Amino acid sequence: MNVSKRVSLVPSSPIRKLVPLADEAKKQGKKVYHLNIGQPDILTPSVFFDAISHHREPVLKYTHSQGDPNLVRAIQRYFLQDGIHFDFEDIIVTTGGSEALIFALTTVADPYDEILIPEPFYANTGSFMNQTSIVPIPVPTKAETAFHLPTKEEFESKITPKTKAILLTNPNNPSGAVLTKQELDMVTALCLKHQLFLIVDEVYRKFAFDGKKSISIGHIEEAKEIAIIIDSVSKRYSSCGARIGSVQSRNKLVMSSILKLAQARLSVSTVDQIGAAKLYEIGDAYIEDVRQEYLRRRDIIVKHLLQIPGVRYEIPEGSFYMILGLPVLDAEDFTKWLLTDFDVHNETVMLAPAKDFYRTPGAGLNQVRLAYMLNCNELEKAMEILKQGLQVYQSLKK
Amino acid sequence: MNVSKRVSLVPSSPIRKLVPLADEAKKQGKKVYHLNIGQPDILTPSVFFDAISHHREPVLKYTHSQGDPNLVRAIQRYFLQDGIHFDFEDIIVTTGGSEALIFALTTVADPYDEILIPEPFYANTGSFMNQTSIVPIPVPTKAETAFHLPTKEEFESKITPKTKAILLTNPNNPSGAVLTKQELDMVTALCLKHQLFLIVDEVYRKFAFDGKKSISIGHIEEAKEIAIIIDSVSKRYSSCGARIGSVQSRNKLVMSSILKLAQARLSVSTVDQIGAAKLYEIGDAYIEDVRQEYLRRRDIIVKHLLQIPGVRYEIPEGSFYMILGLPVLDAEDFTKWLLTDFDVHNETVMLAPAKDFYRTPGAGLNQVRLAYMLNCNELEKAMEILKQGLQVYQSLKK
Repeated sequence: MNVSKRVSLVPSSPIRKLVPLADEAKKQGKKVYHLNIGQPDILTPSVFFDAISHHREPVLKYTHSQGDPNLVRAIQRYFLQDGIHFDFEDIIVTTGGSEALIFALTTVADPYDEILIPEPFYANTGSFMNQTSIVPIPVPTKAETAFHLPTKEEFESKITPKTKAILLTNPNNPSGAVLTKQELDMVTALCLKHQLFLIVDEVYRKFAFDGKKSISIGHIEEAKEIAIIIDSVSKRYSSCGARIGSVQSRNKLVMSSILKLAQARLSVSTVDQIGAAKLYEIGDAYIEDVRQEYLRRRDIIVKHLLQIPGVRYEIPEGSFYMILGLPVLDAEDFTKWLLTDFDVHNETVMLAPAKDFYRTPGAGLNQVRLAYMLNCNELEKAMEILKQGLQVYQSLKK
Repeated sequence: MNVSKRVSLVPSSPIRKLVPLADEAKKQGKKVYHLNIGQPDILTPSVFFDAISHHREPVLKYTHSQGDPNLVRAIQRYFLQDGIHFDFEDIIVTTGGSEALIFALTTVADPYDEILIPEPFYANTGSFMNQTSIVPIPVPTKAETAFHLPTKEEFESKITPKTKAILLTNPNNPSGAVLTKQELDMVTALCLKHQLFLIVDEVYRKFAFDGKKSISIGHIEEAKEIAIIIDSVSKRYSSCGARIGSVQSRNKLVMSSILKLAQARLSVSTVDQIGAAKLYEIGDAYIEDVRQEYLRRRDIIVKHLLQIPGVRYEIPEGSFYMILGLPVLDAEDFTKWLLTDFDVHNETVMLAPAKDFYRTPGAGLNQVRLAYMLNCNELEKAMEILKQGLQVYQSLKK
């Protein structure tokens, strides 16, 4: 008995497929510094646990399919603080950013329709397209232009009658690029011209560096009818285990359509919503502290990269990821070798081979994605090990 | 700008679309007895709240995509207590039974493939098929045979090269039918003969009455390679707001495929999983008390129905729903009328028109679904109001 073609197309999680090698290294007593995973180590604000610890109700009921009204209003205020007005019904709470993405994809495209997506891109977004039978059409971005958007012409060369939307992640996972107003204006004009929806995953919006402002597509008035924004508490409040995200649009047909999908699955976790509503009340000082911490870590990475010959990168502008070009032919082979054959005083590092963030065959083979989820001390050590590992590996391959 | 065809096909929630009329009635000071909704009123076991109130962790992390191992093992024990053995990797925790259904559908069928489903059926299952672009093929069941399965021949007449699975809900929502071993054997043989998967939604499995045993498809050895079981804590432990369900199968390809879908969406709510693991430890005495309570309510309904001329029904064998044929032409019109134009001492009842549980045009027009989620006292009053309402409505329509 065969399973469906669409589920066969869904790739195994790139983040998790090398885990057995890391587990084996740990079993042998090695310490493994994880530069591969996007699970923040920042403390979760205690208000989350406080709120749920006090929650009792006689019957733990379904909440509204749209979301607990308290949480919807908290999300509404979050956007309004940045000058973005959403009506109450322009917001639907979802089970993580994941469900928000699946809802948006299902709503804008039918099976075998196409969605343009700058490459490299978040691997799970590709999986969500596969499972909803949408064809992801990668539009390559380049290391030389710091993974900023391709030109209008490059996008247009990929548009066909089957194209239904463009999907952006801003700030970007895996590249760290933060889009400029000009770029957002260009894509908006393009979408309006070709009658495409514009889905923007903004879960890293608060994490932009060097005075760069991360502009929401909600700020672009012209995109009002076409923009669908994906958000989540996971990264901003270091609350990945609270599966709370949201989808926002001022297009009323889009929202009434997504509400039908939300009604079919009844509701989102009651207690997670109660905790998340409190997270939204924390205020910007907390988020600014977290941003500063990620900035310190980025700077440590960049400092070390300056001392590693042959690596290719641009200083990441936001999120907490970057793409690093390595002076090797096969970054996955190097990643495996670090786990199986290398250590410095019984310590090694784990990377995420970047080819899994590409769908264009052969792209990104020499690249890895770095996530800076380690504290500054550990990050210093991890980068030193990476540098030494690269030296040894290169000498072996000569 | 148009949304996708598939999202356009998803119906508005039948349970919720008459809510504005009920809200208006309440605004006018009427008390509305809800016989329309499947939200249990049984107290949620306090162990759920106890467990989550004690849960603190420095960082609220993603759990394993398969589910918290403690919860997976608890689910494994739940099935084993009834003589059903699942390997650890045969179980994946999901965000409610809803996600379990979506995962199963996506895994067995591609867009425009067909799945046979006895009708009437849970309306949201139809929505999940629409959103995954699967074509639901209703196989009618009849009130005269207490909504038990159609014959083998009736199923076979609907099988085409596009048929990929049969989907059953046992015990049934909305009809209350509990399938016999003979029926499960028949469907299993049929699926094996035609190489179809057999998805069985068993979220009401513990609620069977009159000495009828609700048999899991997990008990049918021959179905081992084709059966996919949907489960959920929502109804069994009156914990709808804890979005915890699970999908089970002994088919390793099915489970490795579903695991890829689970990995893409990262994980299920951490705190809900911690609470749910405790629910599974409560034991059968709690569940038996709940079953007895639903049985008492069913008997109150049946007692009242005996006194209402012209209604058509079979005594429901399980779950906490039943289909009731009314001596009216249009049950939705009657439902609206009860809310807008009728009361007994300023009280009325709300029903769920059953036509939304059918996809065959014109089917179920004179039927409603009753859910017995009211305590015995309120149920007595609600049934008396229904009886009087029917009398008045019939005299008006003469």
